Amino acid sequence: MIRAGIVVTGTEVLSGAVTDRNGPWLSRELYALGVEVAEIVIVGDRPSDIEQALSLMESQRLQLILTSGGLGPTADDLTVQTVARHLGLEVFTDAELEGRIEEIVRPLRARRGVDAEALRAGNSKQATIPRGAAILEPVGTAPGLVIAAGGPGRADRVVVVLPGPPRELQPMWRQAVDVEPLRGLLAGAETGQLRTMRLFGVPESQLAQTLRAAQRDGVRLDLLEVTTCQHRGELEITTRLRDADAGIYGAFEEMMAATHPEELFSTDGKSVDEQVAALLSGRSIAIAESCTGGLLAARLTDVPGSSRYVRGGLVVYSNEAKVALAGVPQELLVAHGAVSEPVAAALAQGARSALDAEIGVGVTGIAGPGGGTPQKPVGLVWLSVAGPGQQTLTRSVRLPGGRAEVRERAVTVAMHMIRRALQHQRQGVAAA
Amino acid sequence: MIRAGIVVTGTEVLSGAVTDRNGPWLSRELYALGVEVAEIVIVGDRPSDIEQALSLMESQRLQLILTSGGLGPTADDLTVQTVARHLGLEVFTDAELEGRIEEIVRPLRARRGVDAEALRAGNSKQATIPRGAAILEPVGTAPGLVIAAGGPGRADRVVVVLPGPPRELQPMWRQAVDVEPLRGLLAGAETGQLRTMRLFGVPESQLAQTLRAAQRDGVRLDLLEVTTCQHRGELEITTRLRDADAGIYGAFEEMMAATHPEELFSTDGKSVDEQVAALLSGRSIAIAESCTGGLLAARLTDVPGSSRYVRGGLVVYSNEAKVALAGVPQELLVAHGAVSEPVAAALAQGARSALDAEIGVGVTGIAGPGGGTPQKPVGLVWLSVAGPGQQTLTRSVRLPGGRAEVRERAVTVAMHMIRRALQHQRQGVAAA
Repeated sequence: MIRAGIVVTGTEVLSGAVTDRNGPWLSRELYALGVEVAEIVIVGDRPSDIEQALSLMESQRLQLILTSGGLGPTADDLTVQTVARHLGLEVFTDAELEGRIEEIVRPLRARRGVDAEALRAGNSKQATIPRGAAILEPVGTAPGLVIAAGGPGRADRVVVVLPGPPRELQPMWRQAVDVEPLRGLLAGAETGQLRTMRLFGVPESQLAQTLRAAQRDGVRLDLLEVTTCQHRGELEITTRLRDADAGIYGAFEEMMAATHPEELFSTDGKSVDEQVAALLSGRSIAIAESCTGGLLAARLTDVPGSSRYVRGGLVVYSNEAKVALAGVPQELLVAHGAVSEPVAAALAQGARSALDAEIGVGVTGIAGPGGGTPQKPVGLVWLSVAGPGQQTLTRSVRLPGGRAEVRERAVTVAMHMIRRALQHQRQGVAAA
Repeated sequence: MIRAGIVVTGTEVLSGAVTDRNGPWLSRELYALGVEVAEIVIVGDRPSDIEQALSLMESQRLQLILTSGGLGPTADDLTVQTVARHLGLEVFTDAELEGRIEEIVRPLRARRGVDAEALRAGNSKQATIPRGAAILEPVGTAPGLVIAAGGPGRADRVVVVLPGPPRELQPMWRQAVDVEPLRGLLAGAETGQLRTMRLFGVPESQLAQTLRAAQRDGVRLDLLEVTTCQHRGELEITTRLRDADAGIYGAFEEMMAATHPEELFSTDGKSVDEQVAALLSGRSIAIAESCTGGLLAARLTDVPGSSRYVRGGLVVYSNEAKVALAGVPQELLVAHGAVSEPVAAALAQGARSALDAEIGVGVTGIAGPGGGTPQKPVGLVWLSVAGPGQQTLTRSVRLPGGRAEVRERAVTVAMHMIRRALQHQRQGVAAA
């Protein structure tokens, strides 16, 4: 298998001020192309640290090295110069490339009134590249590079230099895979697959038991690369496999479906958000939420085109708002408290009536850090889905974590309840 | 300055399935202790790749190496064994530690019905540590380690082994800084400061000009380590400085306040969310939002204690909901369209009336990807803040990016408008 290394440069990333998105994104892209990533190294803008990272990857004989960042017009952006020096390549200023960069930068200059001299120096700096390198045309203002490295006459490894902003890096990487010598290198790779199963309501320890049982039953999981992780309250199983092992993966998937029929909700990579969006097509939904404070409405409307089925939402934080907007009877609040089964159900019904929707969702809970009692601790959330039709689904959960985690997990639970309500309805219709 | 390296292990992080939070967090912690991070290396669970990362850091003569992850009870968690072998240290099973781990695991076993034999093997594995290492007591089930490495009799570097889950790693790191030989190493560090300024409404190119002007005026920015980044539509300037250079930073801050008096909104690290929360204390607010779909209400209620001032919110996605819930006159929608100045103002007033709040906020816009026209393109958002008192602030913005970015940035613009409305009110009262 071809092995690659990724060097992410930038003091703001190394210092923790900004979260790197390029390393993980490139890692996923590479795997789909049959390339395995040995490591991601995050360094500052110091040339010596960039060189150390390149040396490490050289000593590991990695065939492909990708860098992100450090291609800007200013003097502290030194990736191209450092890579060229490290590979022993001479640099020159490509006059044609300089002209193309000038074309891109000119309208920006007019708008912002930037100093002309500084700009010219920047263009020239960005057009200074190693001899023999293939140019990736800029999406922003910085060109990328595909460089053959190794002995004279024969390249034994490829270095790809990409800009730091993800909106530039991503299309330029897609451009790079068709450029020689990278295209040739990738042609020799054995492609693999990245498959995902998603479960809701299965703790990680129980999954470990299921996996052990599968191996006992002869499913050759040892030939697959299975990783599991908790994500937004769901359990995600990501498997990397060679195309040749697709049959083993099929057996694994079947076994999972048999063991966790209710909990396994996705085998095709689709998220619960996408599933709910598809199930809501041609219907209408409204939300009345308290502790989640708008997050459930925000998650439902995150999907383009959701305006066709999301009627609207009520954020009923105060008891007054629960009564006035969602029509929760005052006596329910007095008798059971705001965080209770009848109030959750009344919120769901209230959202449905107030916004004239087919399906109503109610959420009420204690997100913390304050407000908990022994009877109703922080993390207790009541949820209800009213509709479609006469059915109502109401349940409580006790969620772990701090305020943000409780809120986010409550939204995930709600998404799965909506999914279940719509699926049961559909199955009911199919059976009738 | 003491230099450190961070090794993050985990196939799920390397493959991009999970975003690493430990590297950036440890990097920030280290800087505050006067330690500079040379690099963060993310590797899979393969021992040879972990060893390569350790070798790299050795060749750079880093005095401190931190590892995160790979401390679990299963056979694929190999960090301790790999570190020990790399440092040439013998391992043994610490019977007392094994007993303490057993105490922690026993209640979990009872609850989940896990196989007793597998559990015992896991405990023993987690209690197997290098001789001479100091133990960091587990927050989860895995102990951490502080290890002196180097020639016999004299440690010239320190390796700290920490677990992967952030909720375990963070308290265990805080514990580690008081443990020898790490405490001794850190005592020799020259402590620095990490300071933050935040601006809203200044493009990065304009800031670059301000920084150049500052240097011309004699502010020795070359002695500070200044990094800037766009974050959630704001511009964040993070500066690392030695305590001795605090005077220079003071001059920098003064110059920024003089050049960008309206745009510089935070010099003490406080976010606009914290500022708005403080300004809203003793007041009440309500929201009617369309394109942001609940995100503004969610952001305001993200702060603990926000139930004291957030009355509630209306997510009025459809025109019917705008009329029925927020009382927007039908004729305004017909005459100006849903995305317009009068409708934004009517939403703000409507939220205020419907929820009986002092301050009302209205947001209406086109988040895309569909729905744009030449007159009203994707990214156009109208926002309005009504109150406190008689004042109303209404404006439009044209936001870049995709649906998620437009929605998030619109929320940030709204937060700054709320801040400004409340501050002007406060200043008005002070002046009267």
